[in-house]
Amino acid sequence: MRITPATELQTRFKNLQAEMQGAGLEAVLMLQNADLFYFTGSVQQGVLYVPAEGEPVYMVRKEFGRARMESGLKEIVPFKSPKDIAGILADFGHKLPKKAGMELDVVPVALFQRFSKVLDGAEIVDASPLIRTVRAVKSKYEIEIMKDAALMMDRTYQRAKEVIREGMSDLELAAELEFFARKLGHQGVTRMRGFNSELFYGHIFSGADAAAPAFVDAPLGGIGVNPSIGQGASYKTIKKGEPIVVDMIAAFDGYMVDQTRTLCIGGLPDQLKKAYDDMLKIELKLKEIARPGAKWGEIYDECYNLACELGYQDHFMGGKGAQVSFIGHGIGVEVDEFPFIARGFKDQELKEYMTFAFEPKAVYPGLGSVGVENTFWVAKDGLKHLTFSSEDLVVL
Amino acid sequence: MRITPATELQTRFKNLQAEMQGAGLEAVLMLQNADLFYFTGSVQQGVLYVPAEGEPVYMVRKEFGRARMESGLKEIVPFKSPKDIAGILADFGHKLPKKAGMELDVVPVALFQRFSKVLDGAEIVDASPLIRTVRAVKSKYEIEIMKDAALMMDRTYQRAKEVIREGMSDLELAAELEFFARKLGHQGVTRMRGFNSELFYGHIFSGADAAAPAFVDAPLGGIGVNPSIGQGASYKTIKKGEPIVVDMIAAFDGYMVDQTRTLCIGGLPDQLKKAYDDMLKIELKLKEIARPGAKWGEIYDECYNLACELGYQDHFMGGKGAQVSFIGHGIGVEVDEFPFIARGFKDQELKEYMTFAFEPKAVYPGLGSVGVENTFWVAKDGLKHLTFSSEDLVVL
Repeated sequence: MRITPATELQTRFKNLQAEMQGAGLEAVLMLQNADLFYFTGSVQQGVLYVPAEGEPVYMVRKEFGRARMESGLKEIVPFKSPKDIAGILADFGHKLPKKAGMELDVVPVALFQRFSKVLDGAEIVDASPLIRTVRAVKSKYEIEIMKDAALMMDRTYQRAKEVIREGMSDLELAAELEFFARKLGHQGVTRMRGFNSELFYGHIFSGADAAAPAFVDAPLGGIGVNPSIGQGASYKTIKKGEPIVVDMIAAFDGYMVDQTRTLCIGGLPDQLKKAYDDMLKIELKLKEIARPGAKWGEIYDECYNLACELGYQDHFMGGKGAQVSFIGHGIGVEVDEFPFIARGFKDQELKEYMTFAFEPKAVYPGLGSVGVENTFWVAKDGLKHLTFSSEDLVVL
Repeated sequence: MRITPATELQTRFKNLQAEMQGAGLEAVLMLQNADLFYFTGSVQQGVLYVPAEGEPVYMVRKEFGRARMESGLKEIVPFKSPKDIAGILADFGHKLPKKAGMELDVVPVALFQRFSKVLDGAEIVDASPLIRTVRAVKSKYEIEIMKDAALMMDRTYQRAKEVIREGMSDLELAAELEFFARKLGHQGVTRMRGFNSELFYGHIFSGADAAAPAFVDAPLGGIGVNPSIGQGASYKTIKKGEPIVVDMIAAFDGYMVDQTRTLCIGGLPDQLKKAYDDMLKIELKLKEIARPGAKWGEIYDECYNLACELGYQDHFMGGKGAQVSFIGHGIGVEVDEFPFIARGFKDQELKEYMTFAFEPKAVYPGLGSVGVENTFWVAKDGLKHLTFSSEDLVVL
């Protein structure tokens, strides 16, 4: 169990302050769990006030003692209600800001209205793009945690090879792997920023169920155990000759990695075997072109075009009519971080120490899906693997 | 796996329409997963438009085919963007409403702003109180699902007695019970409405760790596996003579029940044994007074006063300084539904077929916590148990 070092926190808020100055923000008021963990080291009911210059103030309603124990920030104060904010800020010599940022992509309207009263006429803009820009570039400390998560991922994946047997249900397989990961310290809660985005341990499914589209923004969806969940493993039993997709999130010490591997019992039809090999070719293409400075959208375009050249226009990243327009997504304390390796991101560039998952997948409705996914970090000379399990198509 | 019957959906939207007419709303636009599941039977990326009279229209971006398959609503249409809404409504003979409701307690500001443009000058008020009022009163169909969840809960609890052993960690125990429940069809995702509220399978912890306060709005918090999670099971090992709290959510076919039991190896100190018995007395008091028509706040007051009379002023529902001001919470498709058995709810009354969890707990910082929790439904003549495991303090 790691406590985020104070030096890490300092670098993080200074990076945010640099972004804030660029955007003309006098302050950011932060409320959301993932952001609070990143900037304070301690998830509490509270508000982190980051001024454009100087020390942030973490105002904590519950649990002040825990925040004191876990956070390396200098200024942590108890507070009861948003009404107290002006007074607390005055104690620290801060006036109420005229232009402030909040996380408008995640903060609900009703809560926002309370803060907007407190900020009394201030212009409030969305600070999330700044926050996400800072969070996208990891420190060496963060990369080390993600390596630990990748180790958990590999051990869990090895376990899959031991437990898969004909006739077991996708749900039983999921349960076995979730159990295994949990005993290794998987934190259970996995965070996604998007409204209504729900995530469990990931997607473990076989055959036609792995090709069923769902509400989630993902190439594969799955049937799930009921329509209230509508994604992931179902009660379907695993048969010989169909692809089994193990797409899991390992979450450790607050950080996640995402990995997909494809397995089967007794082999796959040639079409799917070829599709699996071709998805690996798309990953190879990524590794050729992804460098600091490369544009997110151009990486997407080149990989997408290769998929089309290889004949997957109607099968790539979803079945026909249910295809998503991304192949990769940033990952760290949330699963949907910057960068997006996605259509249309013409200007945004990869930077050294960004981390992202890349998941070329081919989908055949009624038959199944195959593909691979790894989490990488961007080094000066190209991508380095965080997840590292063998990418061979496993035939059990 | 249940598909919500069309007759259920019809009763539900008619109940909402009755509330809407009382509040002068011409329409409600619903976006959130739990509400969509309740009112459509199918969680998709979409908008449910409920007019004050007539059939609701479910506009679905992704995945239209799934919505068609799972939802018993008559009017389901594909759509791409909020901009399409006016046109779709016109097709159904609806004008854009002048006063509409949205779920302002959960919908993020940025998303709200997009809809507010589409609704072009309409007054938009919070529809969540109406939605939650409707959802609080369950149908017989819903009660049956919750009984299935309670069965899963009991079987999982029986499993706890088999696997607990001295020296295992809280995390190992949690992993064992989560695994067991998952194999029984636990849906994994558990839903909570409150912003930043995170929930996994529940809280399983022992000794002092079960008395550590956390950010969550709950009597017990726990240390968790890392500060990013900050609640629930940790790596602490289970010792003889300390209370082991098994507070779990069983989630099945979209519905949840909440149950807590206390166990120990080799007995508990007299103080904790007595506290456990006294928590049972508070549950008995609840059963004496909770009837249709009883006020939420009065039930709270009577039970709280009894806790104080019994000497738990500084230990009830949290350690001194970290006490929460509720003893019970509604439960169904979310864990924080109406009714709240909590301080200050002077006017709101229990109604027949409401369901709630009641969890009197005593907390001794540094020592541990004891308590009991059951999920009930309100019958004409009083409470009926949904969760039903034996309430004896278990000595292993």
